[in-house]
Amino acid sequence: METLKELAEALGPRNCLTEAGDVAPYAVDWRQHWHGTPAAVLRPGTTEEVAIAIRACAAAGLAVVPAGGRTGLCGGAVAPANGPPSVVLSLERLNRIRSVDARDFSIVAEAGCIVQNVQQAAAAVDRLFPLSWGAQGSAMVGGALSTNAGGIRTLRWGNARDLVMGLEVVLPDGRVLNDLRRVRKDNSGYALRHLFLGGEGTLGVITAAALRIVPALKRVETAFVAVPSPEAALNLFSRVMESGADVIAFELIIGECMDIVERNGIGIRIPLPVGSPWYVMVELAAAHPSVPLREMLEDTLAAGAEAEDVLDAAIADNEAQRAMIWRIREDWPDCGRREAPTINTDTAVPVSAVPEFCARVKAALAERWPEGRLIAIGHAGDGNIHVSLMAPRGTSYADWTARARDAEGIVNAISVDLGGSFSAEHGIGQSKRHAMATHKDPVALGVMRAVKAAIDPRGMMNPGKMLP
Amino acid sequence: METLKELAEALGPRNCLTEAGDVAPYAVDWRQHWHGTPAAVLRPGTTEEVAIAIRACAAAGLAVVPAGGRTGLCGGAVAPANGPPSVVLSLERLNRIRSVDARDFSIVAEAGCIVQNVQQAAAAVDRLFPLSWGAQGSAMVGGALSTNAGGIRTLRWGNARDLVMGLEVVLPDGRVLNDLRRVRKDNSGYALRHLFLGGEGTLGVITAAALRIVPALKRVETAFVAVPSPEAALNLFSRVMESGADVIAFELIIGECMDIVERNGIGIRIPLPVGSPWYVMVELAAAHPSVPLREMLEDTLAAGAEAEDVLDAAIADNEAQRAMIWRIREDWPDCGRREAPTINTDTAVPVSAVPEFCARVKAALAERWPEGRLIAIGHAGDGNIHVSLMAPRGTSYADWTARARDAEGIVNAISVDLGGSFSAEHGIGQSKRHAMATHKDPVALGVMRAVKAAIDPRGMMNPGKMLP
Repeated sequence: METLKELAEALGPRNCLTEAGDVAPYAVDWRQHWHGTPAAVLRPGTTEEVAIAIRACAAAGLAVVPAGGRTGLCGGAVAPANGPPSVVLSLERLNRIRSVDARDFSIVAEAGCIVQNVQQAAAAVDRLFPLSWGAQGSAMVGGALSTNAGGIRTLRWGNARDLVMGLEVVLPDGRVLNDLRRVRKDNSGYALRHLFLGGEGTLGVITAAALRIVPALKRVETAFVAVPSPEAALNLFSRVMESGADVIAFELIIGECMDIVERNGIGIRIPLPVGSPWYVMVELAAAHPSVPLREMLEDTLAAGAEAEDVLDAAIADNEAQRAMIWRIREDWPDCGRREAPTINTDTAVPVSAVPEFCARVKAALAERWPEGRLIAIGHAGDGNIHVSLMAPRGTSYADWTARARDAEGIVNAISVDLGGSFSAEHGIGQSKRHAMATHKDPVALGVMRAVKAAIDPRGMMNPGKMLP
Repeated sequence: METLKELAEALGPRNCLTEAGDVAPYAVDWRQHWHGTPAAVLRPGTTEEVAIAIRACAAAGLAVVPAGGRTGLCGGAVAPANGPPSVVLSLERLNRIRSVDARDFSIVAEAGCIVQNVQQAAAAVDRLFPLSWGAQGSAMVGGALSTNAGGIRTLRWGNARDLVMGLEVVLPDGRVLNDLRRVRKDNSGYALRHLFLGGEGTLGVITAAALRIVPALKRVETAFVAVPSPEAALNLFSRVMESGADVIAFELIIGECMDIVERNGIGIRIPLPVGSPWYVMVELAAAHPSVPLREMLEDTLAAGAEAEDVLDAAIADNEAQRAMIWRIREDWPDCGRREAPTINTDTAVPVSAVPEFCARVKAALAERWPEGRLIAIGHAGDGNIHVSLMAPRGTSYADWTARARDAEGIVNAISVDLGGSFSAEHGIGQSKRHAMATHKDPVALGVMRAVKAAIDPRGMMNPGKMLP
């Protein structure tokens, strides 16, 4: 194809991959759920090269599938099967940190920077880049922003969206939108960045971002707490929020998870006896060692115990104990995978609706699949409880997904009925387009389609994603 | 006009004002800078009535100018002179607080709620609605959100935009976009709310919002500090941010302001001797009385003095002293007005560029208007320093605006040159459309125009505002 030859010249032959063996790794997601047949993989090294690539693709009628660390769960960075002719545009070579300014509390990073590298660049100047989740060692800035990634610290510092001051974006016609401003206040017209943040690459390609960083944490206290119910967890949440400390995590975990972690975790020690119906992980932090975090946490837990919202609690006494508490949370996906197949969800409800959400989901799933096991683990402070329906041990993945496929829809519907969202932090990609069609306000869908048509009239950016 | 008769029937005659005397107050802004000739004032009482009004206006070819508390500084809520036939759509009767949920940290308020009433509703359940600025006793939620209002507490909790979880919006075709979700995580498609937040009513009418509230403040410490320079203020800012406390205000004020406040303020006592070149106001806060805020503040100021970044400091010992410090800041606009006419600006630069911004602005204005006085007072923690050029005493407003009109453009250009914004927190409205034309990236303007055309193809929503 003439266009690809030209691009091989413009970007260098190693950056326009067309051999089947070179393209294959980019044609599938890491879970191997989604497969496509892109004609090539482009690896531009500068914003200008991204613009050249996009212009060439536009002229040739090739769709563009932007890709970063490709750690997503919804197939957003994979060319769709049976889609139009397309290329994968990998941002991996756009990986410079353009500036770090401690006094300004800002970092300007290119889309291909690995999230953990941004965290390290911040740490080097005594600052914290708060965005953090399991895949941070592979995920890249562009993907994190395009999917508005969440994670474990959104309670204090918000989602990816909330950490962005400015963006540089290559539009579908190859023009560069330069809004890479490091300012905290800018009311000069529509906040266009918020279309591209969480836009899943359907409106253009994010090439760089001005990101907020915050003072480094100088003290952290972490507790693992047994609670009798989600209602009690919610009471504890209010107490913790009123403790005077910065609450940087408040995770809720159903008791069943502990048995599974004990059985499947490698070297994990759970700091409390298993058997409580629910557990909570709380983490407080401060930017200065003088903040009496330990007392705040102890007082809060004591008041919780007094009110019978806390059954038992273990506070980490050192970094090793703290890391062990976090391993329960972070190794959960692996432990769950080793145990049995699951149907997973990603919903959010108003925080005060978490107890009702848990009760309704439990009843609905138990009625339909009495053989299934309810898993619930997630960011309770955000109302974002990841519910899974786990198969009995020994069930095959194919059997379970065939039998329990409807579970996701049932959980989504309960969430929406409680005023929540059917897609909290993982995005839509390919996997939730049907849910968009089912649950999204048709008026909102209409406005989204109008915006898409206005910015990408040819529909060349990441087709088959997000909009149903 | 037939449409207005129908609307008088639909909304009630008292809610479709057409008599000149009734319309007049809505035809001008409070500073009397902007005047229009709307055909009527509509005062719908429900979202459905807003939709009825919008549909009727669309059918009749009437433009719609949404209005709230009408405290804006840029003429955004006034029908433009020589504009198309229009009505003012006042949201003042949409003033219910629909829900308050302390456990959820949320309030759902209609557009016509006065901001202070939202603050009080939050306080009644031991929570804080953080948005706060001088006009909060008159400004309404709809206007605050449509202009993405800033104010004195954005440093900790962000601008109005950052406090919104969901919106209800009546679109230009009368359909209702119902996205009033009280969830902290929702990645189901484009974040449409961010188009209407700060959209100045040009894309639709915000009728209600789900707002974030936070734990009530149980302890506050406030200091008034003399510093030798903006550079020193910036050093102090880093120290305060690293103190471990929540920093809820960090305001920078040029020394000249103190003389003017002493001369024109009524009952204001400045807690330090005047004569320092610059002053800073710092406020720390905590959600629990056990946080040792006073020690944090004292330690920080002592370290600042040691480093010669702090010349002198007064910490408020009680609520009266605290209120007096804030009066210096909040009564400044009145004091300034009594002293002499000013040319005002509203720019923001990266925080680390504040010293260079101040130096360049001072030099540029002094060269051109040696008789003028540089005023600089603003939210240094946001890089949002409001610079004014004040006339010599006795100059008339008309004379000074004629002579020094270019001052705003000079300050805007310096701000943009430093990577900042020419419009930080007041918005564009009518007053800064020329600055949009001069300074805004043409690519961004093009995308904004495409979005506007996609959502409001007839251009009926708030014409003559924002987009040049």
